[in-house]
Amino acid sequence: MDLWADLDELRQRRSEKWRRYPAAVLPLFVAEMDTKLAPPIRAALDAALSVSDTGYAQPDALPTAYASFAGRRWGWHPDPAAMALMPDVARAARTAIELASSPGDPVVINPPVYPPFFEWLEMTGRRLVSVPLRSGRLDLSGLEAAFAAGARVYLLCNPQNPTGTVHTPAELTEVSSLAAAYGVTVVSDEIHAPLTLGEAVFTPYLSLDGTGTAYAAVSTSKAWNLAGLKAALLVGGSLSGIPEDTVSSTGNLGVIASIAALDAGEAWLDDLRAELDVNRRWLTSALSELGVGCRAPSATYLAWLDLRDHGLGDDPAPVLLERGRVALYRGLDFGPEGAGFVRLNFATSPALLAEAVDRLETALRTGRRPGRT
Amino acid sequence: MDLWADLDELRQRRSEKWRRYPAAVLPLFVAEMDTKLAPPIRAALDAALSVSDTGYAQPDALPTAYASFAGRRWGWHPDPAAMALMPDVARAARTAIELASSPGDPVVINPPVYPPFFEWLEMTGRRLVSVPLRSGRLDLSGLEAAFAAGARVYLLCNPQNPTGTVHTPAELTEVSSLAAAYGVTVVSDEIHAPLTLGEAVFTPYLSLDGTGTAYAAVSTSKAWNLAGLKAALLVGGSLSGIPEDTVSSTGNLGVIASIAALDAGEAWLDDLRAELDVNRRWLTSALSELGVGCRAPSATYLAWLDLRDHGLGDDPAPVLLERGRVALYRGLDFGPEGAGFVRLNFATSPALLAEAVDRLETALRTGRRPGRT
Repeated sequence: MDLWADLDELRQRRSEKWRRYPAAVLPLFVAEMDTKLAPPIRAALDAALSVSDTGYAQPDALPTAYASFAGRRWGWHPDPAAMALMPDVARAARTAIELASSPGDPVVINPPVYPPFFEWLEMTGRRLVSVPLRSGRLDLSGLEAAFAAGARVYLLCNPQNPTGTVHTPAELTEVSSLAAAYGVTVVSDEIHAPLTLGEAVFTPYLSLDGTGTAYAAVSTSKAWNLAGLKAALLVGGSLSGIPEDTVSSTGNLGVIASIAALDAGEAWLDDLRAELDVNRRWLTSALSELGVGCRAPSATYLAWLDLRDHGLGDDPAPVLLERGRVALYRGLDFGPEGAGFVRLNFATSPALLAEAVDRLETALRTGRRPGRT
Repeated sequence: MDLWADLDELRQRRSEKWRRYPAAVLPLFVAEMDTKLAPPIRAALDAALSVSDTGYAQPDALPTAYASFAGRRWGWHPDPAAMALMPDVARAARTAIELASSPGDPVVINPPVYPPFFEWLEMTGRRLVSVPLRSGRLDLSGLEAAFAAGARVYLLCNPQNPTGTVHTPAELTEVSSLAAAYGVTVVSDEIHAPLTLGEAVFTPYLSLDGTGTAYAAVSTSKAWNLAGLKAALLVGGSLSGIPEDTVSSTGNLGVIASIAALDAGEAWLDDLRAELDVNRRWLTSALSELGVGCRAPSATYLAWLDLRDHGLGDDPAPVLLERGRVALYRGLDFGPEGAGFVRLNFATSPALLAEAVDRLETALRTGRRPGRT
């Protein structure tokens, strides 16, 4: 399949990934993919432009398209009537937090975790309660302690970004029991859900029994690379009281592209997953040869690189940028647990991924060069 | 010029205007235009899709494109470095309100005014202070009284929606003096600025001397019909402390389309303004024949219809929808001053506008039919 765009094409893009840094830098920081648009999405967008369909969004068939997709993929059958249109998962998660708690309330997160989680708690005036992952997995006893101490909301990252951890049904069932026991509302960010790799199986949190008033925030934005088109859904929970502007904040072309992705983009998705799996295997092996620690992610196109043994300090990303001209995401942005780590986005062609690893190797070698400290 | 889309094309759109109501209804409620995309915008979007440019937005050349446009149009030369990327004017205005005041602070608005103004004050927890328009114009003594009573922010609608009032340099200069005297931050929503009609001249609020820390919220979304693509700018004021998610909430295709509009869409804009002027003249004359009061708007593509003499009560819009199958915007949504009014969007082909007036006439006649009350 003609999946990956080449560097000439990528350099023409005006998105964050390809404009943040000068051309000498290879960018693998932000979570955009270097894919070409899935043909059904391209066709839907072309059709929309041909009728100048650039006015305000409305939900259209997006809730039913998501429900059908979830049924086919995961045997989960959410009610389209219990979904609200949102511009992105960020707004969906913040809205759920605001519906389920009050300013000052404690909200639990599990660092290392997607940096905006911290920002969302600040924006909503909630109090951060950190229950870090333990060996890359949920710390269930830590969660229970935090819930018992009065947490109102648990913001779950499912699958986890940056580690690519796919939480198991057993873990999530225990989360659900604890949430019910302590009256905690779970808000599950499932933006990476379709991007399981190899044999990994994703469990939608709301598909479990007894999840009560929990929410899921879902989108096509990661799996089909549509982050700049602005469409997502908030699923479940109690949706009354949602600010009216969430619909008008949504992108009309995002809705149209998302419906096309969900209705007709599964073959492309599976091809993508196969290619990402190839990249994942090659990358983890190459990193191992460089002495860089990295647990193979079970989902996402993100690798969480442990550089603590490489003498680059707590914040290796700027060093790698300077020495190797490779832009990776700063580990510390994922919480203090990210000290000495960086996140690498491997949704790129094997050629560019190899180039990135070469640059990483150069940067690591430079650090070991005699005469440098 | 091939400006207006026909009904067959419009019915294929999936935007709010063409999906809210069944096909039997002619929709002239929400502020989307029935135009075809300006060719330079279409070309820019086609080019973006051809390189699958659907990742996260970044400001790119949008601030400099807006500054150049403002210079050519209005002789106003804002500093591109004093502009922040926003998904829409709604978010820009709310951000400015939050930067310039605290929860509970009084904020002045001038109803009848764009309904989300009320919603933004609620979302930001500010206290609404109403200084209604007087005979369709700013009430400067009312503003002074409100400023003297402790207002922190004045949310100006410039040009005014729904009346199409273009505030004069003399009025705005007086606003600026009052704001300086009483320490009020002006936030000027200038979304309709490019859409002056006939001889009307728009004055950018920030182009006046002595506007201090005022903000303007600007966008291409009305003048080029790009509301669903999600891009705008917040200009001026103090931009430090803006939430980080405003950029990631913006649409990448919105940025790309906006740059094309500002750089290469002026000829199209002027053709549009000429056609809107034709519609305006025809409409106000036709409404006059129906005995419907309507001051000719000096800007926007919106007409504010006074139906108070037609016995339809305070809320005529649902009656017109039922009797005439024409969807107009409910006057009461613009504030209590909108009782007995409706807003009509005349950015459509002369043929559809004539059809809308026929439907309005039918609805008004139905009300007068013997045997009906």
